[in-house]
Amino acid sequence: MTAGIGKEFMERTKYKNMEPADQIRGLPHPPVELDFSIQGSTISLPLPAQIPDDALTATQAMYQRKSVRQYSDKPLTLDELSYLLWCTQGVKSVEAHLVTMRTVPSAGARHAFETYILINRVEGLQPGLYRFLAVDHELAPVKLSEDISDLITDACLKQKFVKASAVTFIWTAAMYRMTYRYGQRGYRYVHLDAGHVCQNLYLSAEVIRSGVCAIAAFDDDKLNGILDIDGENQFAVYVAAVGKKVE
Amino acid sequence: MTAGIGKEFMERTKYKNMEPADQIRGLPHPPVELDFSIQGSTISLPLPAQIPDDALTATQAMYQRKSVRQYSDKPLTLDELSYLLWCTQGVKSVEAHLVTMRTVPSAGARHAFETYILINRVEGLQPGLYRFLAVDHELAPVKLSEDISDLITDACLKQKFVKASAVTFIWTAAMYRMTYRYGQRGYRYVHLDAGHVCQNLYLSAEVIRSGVCAIAAFDDDKLNGILDIDGENQFAVYVAAVGKKVE
Repeated sequence: MTAGIGKEFMERTKYKNMEPADQIRGLPHPPVELDFSIQGSTISLPLPAQIPDDALTATQAMYQRKSVRQYSDKPLTLDELSYLLWCTQGVKSVEAHLVTMRTVPSAGARHAFETYILINRVEGLQPGLYRFLAVDHELAPVKLSEDISDLITDACLKQKFVKASAVTFIWTAAMYRMTYRYGQRGYRYVHLDAGHVCQNLYLSAEVIRSGVCAIAAFDDDKLNGILDIDGENQFAVYVAAVGKKVE
Repeated sequence: MTAGIGKEFMERTKYKNMEPADQIRGLPHPPVELDFSIQGSTISLPLPAQIPDDALTATQAMYQRKSVRQYSDKPLTLDELSYLLWCTQGVKSVEAHLVTMRTVPSAGARHAFETYILINRVEGLQPGLYRFLAVDHELAPVKLSEDISDLITDACLKQKFVKASAVTFIWTAAMYRMTYRYGQRGYRYVHLDAGHVCQNLYLSAEVIRSGVCAIAAFDDDKLNGILDIDGENQFAVYVAAVGKKVE
């Protein structure tokens, strides 16, 4: 049963089997965020202030959370989207332009993710695919074509709640930020890190009376193709649909 | 840079490259929890009731969380340990004895983890290594030898805060519970799932004024050896130290 690439991956990413990583070898530190060729103006997000009527305790959020695949037609507000982005990848500080400290933990504070957002229903935003620029807490349009929601739903193995979601998060790994320090073992770490991020999405969504369903079953090639990323240096790790709960 | 086992693992765990999993092939469903050969009596944990003075909001818990590697000498109470275990792996229901629904999400509700706990300082418990029996919300002693804390610290690449922690969680994957349904792609999923679990540990620890530091850098063989697990069918995925914050 355990024979196969998974077992081999676990074996070969043990410390005893690892090559010295580029950081140890003195290579230059990669940037904390991938460059972005702006195709339109970026959209400033509201400051990630505390959501006003937030009375939900941490315990209650954890206890009541469950995966939600049916959403109401209500849009998210821009404040709410900003809040979800802050809770999942918000940059609290940039240390010497080399390392970011964020709302979520990351192995060695590598924070290797670039977050893409499929926007179906957010007040004041044109539907389409955006990238979250975490350092500046801004959104940048990537593709605003009308068929993008159908394409991403299709890449998520036709799971219809992607199309029905208000927004769908797509976390991609800019892999060198992680392998620079941890070598091939970093492929474990981007998955661990993505789980941290997605759990905060689940809990922050509860605060704004929304539900989440995480998606790890997707067609990697299709999804990476839609995002215009190469699938090797940068690739989708995890996806999660979000929408207001049906009351 | 991306050449190597990580890239190969990602490629070969794409859906298009996967073999039909055992579930599709009609093989019998694995149990929701691994058998445990009791070496002593199990310890019932207090019911996972809401922590009484829990006023911490979900937002505040997420905003204030940071990794903590220094702990006070104060022990955790059994109630507090029970709460952390409930938030990270608590079983809300068992569906037809085949699937568990828990406080955390898991790919296809596979919930492939068996949780081990190194106990250094919990009121009323002898220090040592325990396993959490999630279905019955009980602890079972695994090894109560005096050197176990040193051994696990050593396996965690001598990161001293393991020894200094009140408790250290070790999440192991009972891999067939995941590969049964998802085949080799399941090796991605146990890492994603472990991130979800550990994020809830971070946040539940904030509620009880404790701090956490996650550990993904460990000597797999040493750690699996200490746990008496084979490292293939069952292996450590992620570790996290917890202790009361220094006020």
